Amino acid sequence: MTDTWLPTLRTVTPQEGYELAVKLSRVAVKMTQPDASVRETLRAVYEKDADALIAVSSVVATHFQTIAAANNYWRD
Amino acid sequence: MTDTWLPTLRTVTPQEGYELAVKLSRVAVKMTQPDASVRETLRAVYEKDADALIAVSSVVATHFQTIAAANNYWRD
Amino acid sequence: MTDTWLPTLRTVTPQEGYELAVKLSRVAVKMTQPDASVRETLRAVYEKDADALIAVSSVVATHFQTIAAANNYWRD
Amino acid sequence: MTDTWLPTLRTVTPQEGYELAVKLSRVAVKMTQPDASVRETLRAVYEKDADALIAVSSVVATHFQTIAAANNYWRD
Amino acid sequence: MTDTWLPTLRTVTPQEGYELAVKLSRVAVKMTQPDASVRETLRAVYEKDADALIAVSSVVATHFQTIAAANNYWRD
Amino acid sequence: MTDTWLPTLRTVTPQEGYELAVKLSRVAVKMTQPDASVRETLRAVYEKDADALIAVSSVVATHFQTIAAANNYWRD
Repeated sequence: MTDTWLPTLRTVTPQEGYELAVKLSRVAVKMTQPDASVRETLRAVYEKDADALIAVSSVVATHFQTIAAANNYWRD
Repeated sequence: MTDTWLPTLRTVTPQEGYELAVKLSRVAVKMTQPDASVRETLRAVYEKDADALIAVSSVVATHFQTIAAANNYWRD
Repeated sequence: MTDTWLPTLRTVTPQEGYELAVKLSRVAVKMTQPDASVRETLRAVYEKDADALIAVSSVVATHFQTIAAANNYWRD
Repeated sequence: MTDTWLPTLRTVTPQEGYELAVKLSRVAVKMTQPDASVRETLRAVYEKDADALIAVSSVVATHFQTIAAANNYWRD
Repeated sequence: MTDTWLPTLRTVTPQEGYELAVKLSRVAVKMTQPDASVRETLRAVYEKDADALIAVSSVVATHFQTIAAANNYWRD
Repeated sequence: MTDTWLPTLRTVTPQEGYELAVKLSRVAVKMTQPDASVRETLRAVYEKDADALIAVSSVVATHFQTIAAANNYWRD
């Protein structure tokens, strides 16, 4: 992952901010498990596991909090 | 999910803010598991699992924190 | 839950703020599992489960953080 | 718990703030499981469970964050 | 623990702040399980348990957030 | 770990900030389990465990929040 994948935390809308939060939650997984085929196998399991899906949602919530603050909550 | 589902974080009341937090906690699950029938099956299980319900409540709490800040805690 | 149950985040004392945090931690559970009799059954189990009690306390802590900020930490 | 147990979030030192955070982490457990004898039984188990001890520490960390902010990080 | 172990949240460098965060994450465990020999036994187990190590890291992250804010992120 | 590994929380880009967050999430593990060979063994297990990978991602999210604030969200 030497290319630029996160040039800014600014987004035009809250919804794009949320989508960025989802992306950020996935990058840490990729950096810890770089093998895409292993991740694919894991995904087949956890996408049918309610606890894992809720845990993913928790990570997204933390990142969304950061991105929302970075965008001054899209108030401007 | 190409339509607009999150135009703003502003709500009129704290209660509406809380309801928005519940919505945000669910979107990440939908984005990770897009198949509604799978989610329906999972829901039948986790809605009877205290640990899962508490975990959902935790995600809601994080999103509510973000939304409350975005609304300046409805002080205005 | 169409009635008003959260008109404001302001409370007179930190203690009332904490009690409101406990309330907020429970509402998400009610919204996810609306059947009171199911919740009653679950409660009989988790109120004797240390892990669940600590998890509940964690959700309360996050909500209390929000409510404390909303009240400017009751400094005024 | 009708008496006053949380009159203020202000403490003289960070250490007292930390002790208050420990107290706050326990109150939610008491409010969810009011029976002291049940809590005593649970405590005998979780105080020998590393996962539970770490989870308790996590709740304390969140409350300490709130209390530290309330005290302006004891900078004054 | 009647002596002074947390006189201030200020540290000279971010690294010292991180080390203080590690210390704070351990104090709550000590206050919940005061018996050093029990803690020693637990440690032998959890230091070989990836889930526990990650959970410890999570507590450290929350405390580091508090300490970083207390130090104005060492910008001065 | 007596050398300097965290001289500053400032980074030039959000992406470098994210990479620093990954680093910070690992340091607490190293400080709790200093034996590199034990960590290597644990890693072989948790890098194939979806729950552990999501938990790692959660720790990274908390650290990224701190680092993003420290950099004023790279707005300047």
